[in-house]
Amino acid sequence: MEQLILHEDPRSGNCYKIRLTAALLGLPLERRSYDILKGETRTPEFLEHINANGRIPVLQAGDRLLPESNAACWYLAEGSSLIPGSRFGRADCLRWMFWEQYNHEPNVATLRFWLQFVGEAKLTDMQRAQIPLKRVGGDAALALMDEHLRDNDWLVGKDTSVADVVLFAYTHVAEGGGFCLDTYPAICAWVKRVRALPGFVPMAE
Amino acid sequence: MEQLILHEDPRSGNCYKIRLTAALLGLPLERRSYDILKGETRTPEFLEHINANGRIPVLQAGDRLLPESNAACWYLAEGSSLIPGSRFGRADCLRWMFWEQYNHEPNVATLRFWLQFVGEAKLTDMQRAQIPLKRVGGDAALALMDEHLRDNDWLVGKDTSVADVVLFAYTHVAEGGGFCLDTYPAICAWVKRVRALPGFVPMAE
Repeated sequence: MEQLILHEDPRSGNCYKIRLTAALLGLPLERRSYDILKGETRTPEFLEHINANGRIPVLQAGDRLLPESNAACWYLAEGSSLIPGSRFGRADCLRWMFWEQYNHEPNVATLRFWLQFVGEAKLTDMQRAQIPLKRVGGDAALALMDEHLRDNDWLVGKDTSVADVVLFAYTHVAEGGGFCLDTYPAICAWVKRVRALPGFVPMAE
Repeated sequence: MEQLILHEDPRSGNCYKIRLTAALLGLPLERRSYDILKGETRTPEFLEHINANGRIPVLQAGDRLLPESNAACWYLAEGSSLIPGSRFGRADCLRWMFWEQYNHEPNVATLRFWLQFVGEAKLTDMQRAQIPLKRVGGDAALALMDEHLRDNDWLVGKDTSVADVVLFAYTHVAEGGGFCLDTYPAICAWVKRVRALPGFVPMAE
């Protein structure tokens, strides 16, 4: 594969997804850090040369740029054992990944960002007013995962897939957003299984 | 392919994406309607047998169920000309599809749903307070698409892909959410190109 560079903020779970996918696959990844809290992804240079959307992560593969964390994970994982072998399995894997971006990340990850990194005192009134709704949405997402994982070791079929990697990123640090993982025992058991995967790397590294 | 049944609300753009993908590919699709405004996707039967997440669309392929509109489109399109032929192209296609669920749909589609179907007078205070933020977010998403489409006929590479189908669904009816498409001329030209595709079906049918 061509040279891979990850444009990231190391605190971001969306960036960690890509690092973890690469690590599980044994792919070397050069890392370039930006501080989102200092606006380093909103500079004219970043917007022009890295991502017009002003967001990290962006995976650079050779001279091509790929925004969107889950697309980057798919890119790295294509053809590997992290992508299911059947057509329905691949779609089911994508189903969890789209669900992550729509139902899980905007609640679980956003509350973690607001409460752990910005700080409740510095939130806008609008953000503070949204906390209860995001708490309900985040717990609903975690409950849905927990229910699925009660009967299944992994999210898709019988094997680890990139859907597990993607959902691990913000789920295992959900307590930073004020969620109580102890109430989701099947998630806790799955978190242990992910941590035990060969090549696993932790988030803070 | 096995028998395909779409569990849908015909007013939903997320359901239309799947219908349009199937139509462009010439795949027959049986349709079962639910009224989301009457809570027909929150009944115990629906939650138990169709989708524990209480949402439509769900694509049924034989006896298997696939929630998440973009995953369903990918399932239908795999192996067709709507999926790019290169590894980077496929990831870039997924990049637009993830971006749609995170940056476009929660703004453009949600404002359409609130303003055109629920009605501003019936919104909660919290929903009403979010309108300005969703207006800014939706316009930013449309501006990003417009900029990309100024230099490109299609979102990915040189050919129509499932990313165009997925983004067409809520973009072409964005005015229902109070967005002014005339300010995005490249989007308007792209909308015409999508409408001219062989097999195209309109949303209200």
